[in-house]
Amino acid sequence: MAEAPNHDEVLARFDELSVLEAEFDDAELEIIRKSNALNAPLYKKRAEIIAKIPHFWALAFEQAPPEIDNFLQPSDSQVFAEALESLDVTRFEIDDPKGSPRSVSITFGFKDNKFFEDKVLEKKFWYRKSKDWEGLVSEPVKIHWKKGNDLTGGLTDAAVALAQARKKLAKTNSAKSAETELPEYKALAEKLEMSTEASLSFFAWFGFVSSYRWITAEESEEASKADAERLEKLKQGEKVEDEEDDEDEQDFQETEVFPSGDEIATLIADDLFPSAIKYFKHAHETEDDELSEIDVEDGDDDDDESDEEIDIRGLVGKGRKADHSPPAKKQRKA
Amino acid sequence: MAEAPNHDEVLARFDELSVLEAEFDDAELEIIRKSNALNAPLYKKRAEIIAKIPHFWALAFEQAPPEIDNFLQPSDSQVFAEALESLDVTRFEIDDPKGSPRSVSITFGFKDNKFFEDKVLEKKFWYRKSKDWEGLVSEPVKIHWKKGNDLTGGLTDAAVALAQARKKLAKTNSAKSAETELPEYKALAEKLEMSTEASLSFFAWFGFVSSYRWITAEESEEASKADAERLEKLKQGEKVEDEEDDEDEQDFQETEVFPSGDEIATLIADDLFPSAIKYFKHAHETEDDELSEIDVEDGDDDDDESDEEIDIRGLVGKGRKADHSPPAKKQRKA
Repeated sequence: MAEAPNHDEVLARFDELSVLEAEFDDAELEIIRKSNALNAPLYKKRAEIIAKIPHFWALAFEQAPPEIDNFLQPSDSQVFAEALESLDVTRFEIDDPKGSPRSVSITFGFKDNKFFEDKVLEKKFWYRKSKDWEGLVSEPVKIHWKKGNDLTGGLTDAAVALAQARKKLAKTNSAKSAETELPEYKALAEKLEMSTEASLSFFAWFGFVSSYRWITAEESEEASKADAERLEKLKQGEKVEDEEDDEDEQDFQETEVFPSGDEIATLIADDLFPSAIKYFKHAHETEDDELSEIDVEDGDDDDDESDEEIDIRGLVGKGRKADHSPPAKKQRKA
Repeated sequence: MAEAPNHDEVLARFDELSVLEAEFDDAELEIIRKSNALNAPLYKKRAEIIAKIPHFWALAFEQAPPEIDNFLQPSDSQVFAEALESLDVTRFEIDDPKGSPRSVSITFGFKDNKFFEDKVLEKKFWYRKSKDWEGLVSEPVKIHWKKGNDLTGGLTDAAVALAQARKKLAKTNSAKSAETELPEYKALAEKLEMSTEASLSFFAWFGFVSSYRWITAEESEEASKADAERLEKLKQGEKVEDEEDDEDEQDFQETEVFPSGDEIATLIADDLFPSAIKYFKHAHETEDDELSEIDVEDGDDDDDESDEEIDIRGLVGKGRKADHSPPAKKQRKA
């Protein structure tokens, strides 16, 4: 800083930083690809071992850091303890030049349970761009709840209904504002107004759409193209006008059933899933030898209805008699 | 889970998971190496641009997530605003087969200021193992405070004194417990008892040693060797006895001046440093055009003493007149 920079010089630095940011972004995508290639065979091996360990994923979820654990209601933990058999995370667009290595699919495998008919619940998140936002968007996943056991009180059904109506609307009508006139919109907005976030089931996450708004593949492709053109101009040292903000007047969060759904997807994909062995082992360390006995006893509950009695907190030793030492402090990776 | 696993089978799975964890660890080290190779040239380019932007790092620190920002007292922000010129993060053992790609060095560059004589403060963190712990350890860094301006109230000096006495002791005496008898130990422990953590200066972080205890390179190498042997046995399917816990009776945290020093090192290395452009830009977005004017005005304060008047909160628009819109919510990477 030998000489004082003037206003134009400082602004030019901003453009240089923008060009550099795009290069950092490319490096990050390459790291995701490399990491995926290195870890995929290890995750496969892990899935084979885990399949032989009862309650592995329920225990891993229970011992995950509070950022994840906080989203689980006791009834959600009960479903996980009784029925969650597998968890898988894949980067389904990693080899797709039109897609993104940041797009991620999270798949839960369940055994027969009293809550829903589904054996598999897969939630896909696409990494997409609009003019003034980028991030993960998803489509609501239909859960076939058993009568009287819908943990979300109809939220996932209403979210699926609105998503379908929204798609139909997009085909027949180009007027954006019309979405708020849909009966499915009103139904979901009213349902959300009635429900309290404090007791929101984790399963409402399957109804998540976006922390911004739904973005189609086409819109995202256009935005990416515009981005690339803007970047090219910056590299050539051309002036680039800031895009106008034509902000949407619709409040999309009025019908978002799980406002931090993208955040929890990232937490599962980047923390819980990669570090699952650590969390699972930690569940065992907190209760020493005693616990493995319990696990073994629970191991044979596949073929009868005794499942329904399992309490995940009992499995990991939480909420037991007071003469036990408190669970050790949860640890993060350095 | 066709058949119920028995106790021995479940324990065997644990051993398989341990072997697998070591493979995941190797993959992670390769990712760190790959990431380092890809990003190093970009960080170099960035440093060149940043050198021309006044207050870049002070603004980045101010806009960093609360996990980092919370460690900064107003007087620390003042030092950063007035004197912080550069920040660099390097993986100094990345090519050292005896070292670790997780070891990290964080270097702050300062210009002349009223607080200390040092132009460079470098804090190195070595990733080391003991029998029952692994993580980052560091050596206290001497800060040459100017008279009356020691923001840590003598904590960094006392930490350096103890570290030196500890080294001397290690050479002359093998009795571990003797450390607590050192006058430097008592001096630091008393100083810490008097100070309150709530007002701890960020600069006390330069006195950090370990969240566990100091571990020498030799001890770490032995522990790594023992780990490797244990792993080899597990791979061969041999039984491995759990190591005995010969827990140290000394409470090392009694003389740790900055208890979460390893955490803040990780936050700086893995978040603030890689995402600095994002945080810096965010500082500007919160106050629109108006801010760049202010920056330009501040740009010429190199060559006189007007520096001392700068308030970093003024730079980023915080704490201004109430008719400004509140700063936008801090964002995290998806």
